[in-house]
Amino acid sequence: MNLFIAEFLGTFLLILMGSGVVANVVLPGTKGSQGGWIVITAGWAFGVFIAVVVAGPYSGAHINPAVSLALALTGDFAWELLWIYIPAQILGAAFGAFISWLIYKDHFAKTRDTGLIFAPFGTAPAIRNYASNFTSEVVGTFVLIIVILYSTQAALLGETDTPIGLGSLGALPVAILVWVIGLSLGGTTGYAINPARDLGPRIVHQLLPIKGKGSSDWAYSWVPVLGPIVGAALAAGVYLLLK
Amino acid sequence: MNLFIAEFLGTFLLILMGSGVVANVVLPGTKGSQGGWIVITAGWAFGVFIAVVVAGPYSGAHINPAVSLALALTGDFAWELLWIYIPAQILGAAFGAFISWLIYKDHFAKTRDTGLIFAPFGTAPAIRNYASNFTSEVVGTFVLIIVILYSTQAALLGETDTPIGLGSLGALPVAILVWVIGLSLGGTTGYAINPARDLGPRIVHQLLPIKGKGSSDWAYSWVPVLGPIVGAALAAGVYLLLK
Amino acid sequence: MNLFIAEFLGTFLLILMGSGVVANVVLPGTKGSQGGWIVITAGWAFGVFIAVVVAGPYSGAHINPAVSLALALTGDFAWELLWIYIPAQILGAAFGAFISWLIYKDHFAKTRDTGLIFAPFGTAPAIRNYASNFTSEVVGTFVLIIVILYSTQAALLGETDTPIGLGSLGALPVAILVWVIGLSLGGTTGYAINPARDLGPRIVHQLLPIKGKGSSDWAYSWVPVLGPIVGAALAAGVYLLLK
Amino acid sequence: MNLFIAEFLGTFLLILMGSGVVANVVLPGTKGSQGGWIVITAGWAFGVFIAVVVAGPYSGAHINPAVSLALALTGDFAWELLWIYIPAQILGAAFGAFISWLIYKDHFAKTRDTGLIFAPFGTAPAIRNYASNFTSEVVGTFVLIIVILYSTQAALLGETDTPIGLGSLGALPVAILVWVIGLSLGGTTGYAINPARDLGPRIVHQLLPIKGKGSSDWAYSWVPVLGPIVGAALAAGVYLLLK
Repeated sequence: MNLFIAEFLGTFLLILMGSGVVANVVLPGTKGSQGGWIVITAGWAFGVFIAVVVAGPYSGAHINPAVSLALALTGDFAWELLWIYIPAQILGAAFGAFISWLIYKDHFAKTRDTGLIFAPFGTAPAIRNYASNFTSEVVGTFVLIIVILYSTQAALLGETDTPIGLGSLGALPVAILVWVIGLSLGGTTGYAINPARDLGPRIVHQLLPIKGKGSSDWAYSWVPVLGPIVGAALAAGVYLLLK
Repeated sequence: MNLFIAEFLGTFLLILMGSGVVANVVLPGTKGSQGGWIVITAGWAFGVFIAVVVAGPYSGAHINPAVSLALALTGDFAWELLWIYIPAQILGAAFGAFISWLIYKDHFAKTRDTGLIFAPFGTAPAIRNYASNFTSEVVGTFVLIIVILYSTQAALLGETDTPIGLGSLGALPVAILVWVIGLSLGGTTGYAINPARDLGPRIVHQLLPIKGKGSSDWAYSWVPVLGPIVGAALAAGVYLLLK
Repeated sequence: MNLFIAEFLGTFLLILMGSGVVANVVLPGTKGSQGGWIVITAGWAFGVFIAVVVAGPYSGAHINPAVSLALALTGDFAWELLWIYIPAQILGAAFGAFISWLIYKDHFAKTRDTGLIFAPFGTAPAIRNYASNFTSEVVGTFVLIIVILYSTQAALLGETDTPIGLGSLGALPVAILVWVIGLSLGGTTGYAINPARDLGPRIVHQLLPIKGKGSSDWAYSWVPVLGPIVGAALAAGVYLLLK
Repeated sequence: MNLFIAEFLGTFLLILMGSGVVANVVLPGTKGSQGGWIVITAGWAFGVFIAVVVAGPYSGAHINPAVSLALALTGDFAWELLWIYIPAQILGAAFGAFISWLIYKDHFAKTRDTGLIFAPFGTAPAIRNYASNFTSEVVGTFVLIIVILYSTQAALLGETDTPIGLGSLGALPVAILVWVIGLSLGGTTGYAINPARDLGPRIVHQLLPIKGKGSSDWAYSWVPVLGPIVGAALAAGVYLLLK
């Protein structure tokens, strides 16, 4: 796998699982319907796990433009590679949301609430307040990036099969990290903490001919893009300051 | 343990736990009744874990014809061994479902809903639509196989006690993989992703003299057999293409 | 720590956590009230985890007479040590239940249902049928013992700090094992799978002056003692047969 | 990072996650509202995980005055460093609670119940009985400290990146330990088991101008400070006795 394919495949797996678990919990008539926040956050966390297992050894499994940006800022990643990583991440995310919709198509068709139809695609705030929502995304991404940067076993940096032998288990810490961000900080905006995770699926929601779908809420779409970018820059800054 | 016994025992443990957790959650009056999707998916995931711990060092713990097939397609497994592995897997699955029924017998006897009586045996679609259901099983198994093939510590391939020393913990990544497939993609068909897991217990449901049981739904039975086979072949193809 | 203290302390921690989590979930007014089966089974599983972390390097952390018996039967444990291990396990279990009661005393005092008052102490069948209940305990313990015996990293055998370096994480596989037994097979009898776990706390329930408590149900008490013994013997037999 | 910054950052992350998960579950209108005890205890446990990942290699990630005290008592930590560690822990905890409030501000504003407004800050007993509540905190902290002291891979002691290579996964045992204390013993007082965790956020609750907030309940505040201190001393004593 080259870098583009690895990031595409990794982000595809992440969003297939993430979009899928939201569909499973919020759409009517599924087996996991009303499964609760523990199901949603575990689905996203383990989606990160398998994405890192697959893409880690090939591209470092950034699967998130905020991660790529932070690593570029700290000097651990070449700036010009952003032009490969970020498009791959957005396209992979979009394709993941599309396949997830394909699987849950019959359940989408039975859903009347436009908010529930949108939920498996993009994030939406529990209470709309751009300042607060932006803060949520900044802090959530700050935690994501600062822990990755200080992680003694940087699973996201492609070292999942280190000489010291953790194998695929090396992907577990970053999965637990995303789990706790969801559990603790995801209650307000649904923790995008990843511009590609929100933007790609939101475009798919716009394009798909889902009967009775509502707006793709482009007015909000800058929050889950800019918030993670600012949070990543902040974390990189703190890291460099303390180094 | 020879290969047959290892695959039999591994698949037996998997289905005993999987069939058991469904019985515990869906049947009336059990201690885990209405425990929710997190309980069901955790039970299946950790059932994989103990199956791989026990059978891994002896047969590689395929415990799934789709895994055996994919590994044969990628050249990592001898085709003629399929004649040992697949019968062992189906028989082990059937025996696991039988023992699980034995344990929950008194609760089955108090159940009136034929769908609930069937649930611990075979999978059934939330919304019957053969094309969609088939797609679900294809995609779910594709994810299972592609991640196994790219796993840097191929727990399913018998390397659970590698020289680098993960011991039984080497079985954890594949358990997490099955967990997230259930959480995220299991909402439509109940994620068979394993022909033996569905076929063996379905035969047991047909044969057992459970009072008030309904149909074993043979009309649907090809989906959880053919879907995983196609998904496994697809994953093996993508893997070979990218290699 | 000598063997007696290690087994006492390990089983104390196990039952303190196990009895505690049941009290937290079933008694009225606690913070975890109605937390569900996932909370109860996680509490018992992680109780095993910390017990093995503490006692593992000193006594092998059997913390269960059925484990000691099985290892004696397979020749991995000296028969005469049973006279040290089993009393320590029963006393540790009793002391754990006592301290757990001390913590939840005010909540016990507000509980009217004698079944709920008893639940944190001993196991009780969901549907009383001695043959079925006995079968449940036999099968549950069979799974516990067979997986331990085949575990490639025998965490229960005191090898938690192996030269290959898993450290305390070496206690995780047996915790996951107990978790899945609870999730999947615990729905009928509450999975004693450990004679000391049931007998010690049941004696404490008999002795404690809890207002409004009901019977300690000695008529049932042989099931969670004899079932695990038979299950352990069966697993040891199968293991020796296949060896 | 120096010792002060490491303890500040570690405790900040712990309380940001812990305070955040409580806000997410108990405040109205959040995405995780009514997520249950499994969500709350997982949030705190994984909050410990990321705190230890970040601060472990720099300060040993005590993130708890009771841990620092116990290690001083057993001779594994210099007494004079308490003057650096404890203030850093209290300040970090306070700052974590403040940022958590900032994120959930709009949800706090919609909350009428003063108990729910207070819950993300400090602990409060389910049934107020100072003797019982004190006992709960003593026992919970005793378990925390005794397991840490006996842990064969002392993750809290800064050895998260040991030569034997567990990397960030070395922080998992202590996270599981805190998880089970919450699951099993947290039902009465909400398991402070850490003087800084309660005191810092309680001061923030006192200072913040939250509309409609109630008392900061200083009458109870000695329990989650003194209980953990006594529990830690008790555990250190037992450890030294058995050594």
